[in-house]
Amino acid sequence: MVRTSFLALWLFPTIFFSDASLLGQTAMGAGNARGEIEEFNRRLEEATRRMDNGATMALWAEDGISLLPSTKPMVGKAAIAAFMDRVMGDLAGAKMERFEMECSGVEVAGEMASEWCREHQVVQMGGGKAPFDGRGKMLLVLRRGGDGKWKLLREMWNAE
Amino acid sequence: MVRTSFLALWLFPTIFFSDASLLGQTAMGAGNARGEIEEFNRRLEEATRRMDNGATMALWAEDGISLLPSTKPMVGKAAIAAFMDRVMGDLAGAKMERFEMECSGVEVAGEMASEWCREHQVVQMGGGKAPFDGRGKMLLVLRRGGDGKWKLLREMWNAE
Repeated sequence: MVRTSFLALWLFPTIFFSDASLLGQTAMGAGNARGEIEEFNRRLEEATRRMDNGATMALWAEDGISLLPSTKPMVGKAAIAAFMDRVMGDLAGAKMERFEMECSGVEVAGEMASEWCREHQVVQMGGGKAPFDGRGKMLLVLRRGGDGKWKLLREMWNAE
Repeated sequence: MVRTSFLALWLFPTIFFSDASLLGQTAMGAGNARGEIEEFNRRLEEATRRMDNGATMALWAEDGISLLPSTKPMVGKAAIAAFMDRVMGDLAGAKMERFEMECSGVEVAGEMASEWCREHQVVQMGGGKAPFDGRGKMLLVLRRGGDGKWKLLREMWNAE
């Protein structure tokens, strides 16, 4: 057995080493990236649930672009932050009762990644208004910056 | 002058070579990718304009996902093709009179790229119906396959 293994290794060193480097790549690169992106998702979900615009904006890249339905494309973090503050002003008195986000289909290539998510939100509007109960899906593109942190580069949303 | 240039080259070989390799990278990597993605966009625009489902599907990756509003996520090329055929059946007699797509914000990382597009379509519905005139935006994620060809990996659309 030992001899067969040794022979296999001697005969197929390229396969062995390419396998080993693939394993290394998964563990150190894409594998790590997936864990980091799960952590990013938890932060995004938590910031949205708390309606914490500051925490949400901290997850955006400076050159991020947000594409919402029937809304002009928001190009750059400043434009996105201004929009979020406006929405929050319009929603004064509202409270996020529930927000869940489930992401899948993560694809990673170097410093870029993409995933898509389903979300469900229940917002108590206050002032005797009926609560808003909505479901949607999102396509996200993330980029890992020089500081190793994943940031939101592109976001699009439409109804479930 | 010659001597100064030589001295500069001798003093700063790292800078020279890293500049040269950066130039090489732009010309051979991201630069090429951008040209290839423009070509991909032309093909997608042309296939959509001709309502040619076969040509459109040839631009999709096997594991592509399409996320349209108020529609279940379509996961995989077969699901997307079936949806497109169904739409085409419903639109029997319709003719795309005009379709324009303008993309920007191309980001490339290795074998993955993303861009977003604005589109405008005018469809003559036939049978005395009013033409459909719609504008939307798209977020696209592309992946370059082993054959060097960019394919559509993720697509989302919402109204302009």
